[in-house]
Amino acid sequence: MSKVINFKEKFHKFDDHWSPRVIAEMNDYQFKLVKVEGEFVWHDHPVTDEVFIVIEGVLSIEFRDGNVTLNSGEMYVIPKGVEHKPVAKSECKIMIVVPKGVVNTGDSGSALTAENDVWV
Amino acid sequence: MSKVINFKEKFHKFDDHWSPRVIAEMNDYQFKLVKVEGEFVWHDHPVTDEVFIVIEGVLSIEFRDGNVTLNSGEMYVIPKGVEHKPVAKSECKIMIVVPKGVVNTGDSGSALTAENDVWV
Repeated sequence: MSKVINFKEKFHKFDDHWSPRVIAEMNDYQFKLVKVEGEFVWHDHPVTDEVFIVIEGVLSIEFRDGNVTLNSGEMYVIPKGVEHKPVAKSECKIMIVVPKGVVNTGDSGSALTAENDVWV
Repeated sequence: MSKVINFKEKFHKFDDHWSPRVIAEMNDYQFKLVKVEGEFVWHDHPVTDEVFIVIEGVLSIEFRDGNVTLNSGEMYVIPKGVEHKPVAKSECKIMIVVPKGVVNTGDSGSALTAENDVWV
């Protein structure tokens, strides 16, 4: 029997931004926690949708044709292939759901590309 | 551009227990909100893991060899094929993540089997 996963406890274990930590796997999908602050890079994920859930703080997601703002207790599904850029004015704690192996910066090739499959 | 999904707003739209409402799809997976209270039935899902995330309240999940208790801000992954029975002493609001088409009672055939793919 595995352990219950507590978001706050997991967030206490790391401080860097834009560096997803895997907290759980279901089938071939991973649930990842990320602390974000500032502007990420424009990118898309050509083969998969991506789910963002805001745990604490405020996250904006810019699209080429507009933007959305997510508060704590809100989620959003980025359709596959849609360019987006996450932005947070101050630190925001989020959970992402994507298939295992998906790179955070998609195919944009950025200095913000994080090591994949890092667990916390 | 689709709308931001707010858990509280969605929960306000239904009151019945053990009857999942789909709020989002990513690829062939669905995110479902459920209000639960009392005891569910023993069941398993032979072909998929199942994720529980507690949004509000307290959820216990009984297994044949023990149990876990989840509070708000906690999640758990039930491995495929593992028998389990969710129990909530008082109303608890949860989010479930499973592949599209998965029946809430697995293959147990129960009066609590809910209509599938109902959106809110």
